[in-house]
Amino acid sequence: MKAALVLLSGGLDSATLLHFVKKRRKVQDLYALSFAYGQKHSRELAMARRQARDAGVKEHRIVDLSFFGGLIAGGSALTDKAIPIPNLTDLSGRQRRQPPTYVPNRNQVFLSLAAAYAEAHGIRDVFYGAQAQDEYGYWDCTVDFVRRINQVLRLNRGKAVAIHAPFALLKKADVLRIGLALGVDYSHTWSCYRGGKNPCGTCPTCVERRNAFRTVGVEDELR
Amino acid sequence: MKAALVLLSGGLDSATLLHFVKKRRKVQDLYALSFAYGQKHSRELAMARRQARDAGVKEHRIVDLSFFGGLIAGGSALTDKAIPIPNLTDLSGRQRRQPPTYVPNRNQVFLSLAAAYAEAHGIRDVFYGAQAQDEYGYWDCTVDFVRRINQVLRLNRGKAVAIHAPFALLKKADVLRIGLALGVDYSHTWSCYRGGKNPCGTCPTCVERRNAFRTVGVEDELR
Repeated sequence: MKAALVLLSGGLDSATLLHFVKKRRKVQDLYALSFAYGQKHSRELAMARRQARDAGVKEHRIVDLSFFGGLIAGGSALTDKAIPIPNLTDLSGRQRRQPPTYVPNRNQVFLSLAAAYAEAHGIRDVFYGAQAQDEYGYWDCTVDFVRRINQVLRLNRGKAVAIHAPFALLKKADVLRIGLALGVDYSHTWSCYRGGKNPCGTCPTCVERRNAFRTVGVEDELR
Repeated sequence: MKAALVLLSGGLDSATLLHFVKKRRKVQDLYALSFAYGQKHSRELAMARRQARDAGVKEHRIVDLSFFGGLIAGGSALTDKAIPIPNLTDLSGRQRRQPPTYVPNRNQVFLSLAAAYAEAHGIRDVFYGAQAQDEYGYWDCTVDFVRRINQVLRLNRGKAVAIHAPFALLKKADVLRIGLALGVDYSHTWSCYRGGKNPCGTCPTCVERRNAFRTVGVEDELR
């Protein structure tokens, strides 16, 4: 594959994806795109920078979407100080289908911008680290979501960009196994939504991460 | 209709749409959203502000996407100084299907941001002024594009936002007739892609606008 763009948050899934695309798809020119959207865990962006450097990307662009939190004010615990990040155990079954950490239409915004960047740079393939969570879910991380976004992009009369989400049906432990085999340095990835100095261990993504490491039976060196 | 959001560029179509939605759909709380994305014709934004005020919107937000021109550098004559705005008559038949004034995936970016804003504000209906041009075309102004974007948004497990493009199958002259009947002040709308002090009269959108006024048989007071 000549060129590819990876959406890189700096979390476990997208860091794995970056190295996966580089090594397994033998990409010549690898690009990475990250977003500063007012997330409480902006700490992830330093990890994104580090992973991009490790993977030797041709360009890593961090797009300043700091206005986004204001645009969706009150819309998400991930961006709004007045809405606390919940513990996973405090979420009801119904809430787990669309938790307070869901960010309104964020992923379509990210993929649209990624497709614009890719199209302008002659990159046909965009990789997105969506992954099926066990414990909670987001509609904009599903296989259907990616398929429908591609149905939009396919209408382009020029050279259409395609979104690939190779991990969309994998469990987090599967992703972790792939990354460990590729030698990904997980001590330089960030998951915790609370974004404190150390991972909180109880927010939804901390629990998912811990479960994945436990399942695989390795130590998470970040903790 | 309780609340609605209108994508407002400040051009003829979206200005008409704003007043159309307000009056014909009897919207209580009308919102407008505009984007400063590095367009050469940013003059349109002053017109957007004026139209929003005339329509008595509850909130008119102009989102600063000035990074967008850099993200798609070289991707569009609308944002790149090195790429001249063409005259319509200089475009070949093939070019008219995707002219240099096409902006890579811009409209999906705009609609995604609009849907995010709407979802966070409890607004279910977003109006988009896409309109079938006679002389040239953009894939992201078509009925199919809007339908497929809605297929994405419909996956939302919360309250899904719907995009409406009531002018998508109309000619510009039809839109103009609707707006004249509604009393829209077209002297405060801007179309010209070149964005000079006066409309150039020869770029694709100037020609479309002139043809529409000629067809309807009224004078364009902007000229």
